[in-house]
Amino acid sequence: MRQLVLPRSYQGGPHLELEGKESQYLTKVLRLKRGQQILGRDTEGRKYLLTLIEITSHSCILSCQQVEQNMQVQTTDALPSYQGPYPNLVLLQCLCKGRKEEQIFRQATEIGAATLALVSSRYCVTDLSDKKEKAVHARFERLEIQIKEALQQSGSPVPTQLVSQVLDLQDVPSWWADRGLAIFFHQSTRSESQKTLTSLLEAHPIEKPVCVLIGPEGGFSDEECTFLEQSGFYPVVLKTNILRSETAGVYALSAIQVLLTETYNNKPVHLSQ
Amino acid sequence: MRQLVLPRSYQGGPHLELEGKESQYLTKVLRLKRGQQILGRDTEGRKYLLTLIEITSHSCILSCQQVEQNMQVQTTDALPSYQGPYPNLVLLQCLCKGRKEEQIFRQATEIGAATLALVSSRYCVTDLSDKKEKAVHARFERLEIQIKEALQQSGSPVPTQLVSQVLDLQDVPSWWADRGLAIFFHQSTRSESQKTLTSLLEAHPIEKPVCVLIGPEGGFSDEECTFLEQSGFYPVVLKTNILRSETAGVYALSAIQVLLTETYNNKPVHLSQ
Repeated sequence: MRQLVLPRSYQGGPHLELEGKESQYLTKVLRLKRGQQILGRDTEGRKYLLTLIEITSHSCILSCQQVEQNMQVQTTDALPSYQGPYPNLVLLQCLCKGRKEEQIFRQATEIGAATLALVSSRYCVTDLSDKKEKAVHARFERLEIQIKEALQQSGSPVPTQLVSQVLDLQDVPSWWADRGLAIFFHQSTRSESQKTLTSLLEAHPIEKPVCVLIGPEGGFSDEECTFLEQSGFYPVVLKTNILRSETAGVYALSAIQVLLTETYNNKPVHLSQ
Repeated sequence: MRQLVLPRSYQGGPHLELEGKESQYLTKVLRLKRGQQILGRDTEGRKYLLTLIEITSHSCILSCQQVEQNMQVQTTDALPSYQGPYPNLVLLQCLCKGRKEEQIFRQATEIGAATLALVSSRYCVTDLSDKKEKAVHARFERLEIQIKEALQQSGSPVPTQLVSQVLDLQDVPSWWADRGLAIFFHQSTRSESQKTLTSLLEAHPIEKPVCVLIGPEGGFSDEECTFLEQSGFYPVVLKTNILRSETAGVYALSAIQVLLTETYNNKPVHLSQ
């Protein structure tokens, strides 16, 4: 079901006034009328039942009632949906050309990734380091918009967070700090060290983070691969074709999610509203 | 590794002359020089070693030598890649708005889907039935271009085929003719009949086709769901958010490929060139 992502400024009060685009989304796009309800989530993922109590030409006022995470909410736009558990997925995406990152992060948010970050590596065609601060800021703003739209449209209960700076590949291991399983995809002949997804995930607890690092169009250099392996990142080879950067992330997140929620955690599906 | 998809007109002779865009792809995009080699595949998926023997301003001539499917070919653009087995994946995608189908079919081709088709169903926003033949033809031509580019770029050994007409949902079961497992995704409360991907694929032989039917933006109607179920299509609920049409297909194909090639067919990965 669709939901409204509450503004960062919302502190949990009983009423919330929305203006501009936010207000239009509710009254023009979702065509919500006075008295109708919609699910809300704050940036921490907390769940609210929102009731539209007033509409003016440029704004609207909602009453906000926090509800339990697993409480069923009857709204006007209710399709039953899976409410978890979700694996804790972290996608580190090397910089891509053009606006491909927007599509990747949008799809990753829909799937329910918890954390997204951009990474700069040797063969990245795009280099943001010599770009003006304003251009980099605009790039992050566009990504934030995609993530928010995807959260609202998919009704994801996972409050996807975007890391607010580009990580240098050299800093990735210290940023990651061994929080869980970390993998990267690399097509190489060094088959001794390569693992399959299945072998790495078989004994992985669903709540423990999985970090997926996707290389740029040009792949990783040999030195980068060695560095990553020495830092505890597992090189994984997929039994598929060589995928483009914008397909690899979605492929990996989808497969990992199914393996962790279904194959190795085979409880019946519980849908709620 | 990248490869050249041979024109449909190629009948297996020792030489092939390419003109226009085809020639440019080799000489300008891949920057192949005289004497250099590239892998070729015909529309049936047969493998050829191609050597560039002449370049003129508007064309080039290749010598063609058919090779065994599993023979390693040393070319100038050689990254080791997985050579199979590939599951026999069939993606039936309900018509989408705009050019989303192009992205979906491109990604499905990269992943190695064998057959792709467009389907028309009740809640499709796009209706091609009242469009001029020319417009429909142009739509299919654009899809063919995407598929060909994806085959060339990904080096997929699976010769992805596009069904050359839009299937009406009512005709899908007779078209499919019980060739294997058929599933569709539907978020409903009729939980008794719903299966998980894992339970359906656990005992599925990798060579037997799997048909994945993805609904349009508006989903399937109740009547359509009943019709599909009665026709032997299994409704599957994914343990994830409600995905947009353009994410659902890639999600499903990725997960099914990993389940069939890794989880239930756990042999070591063999890479060849």
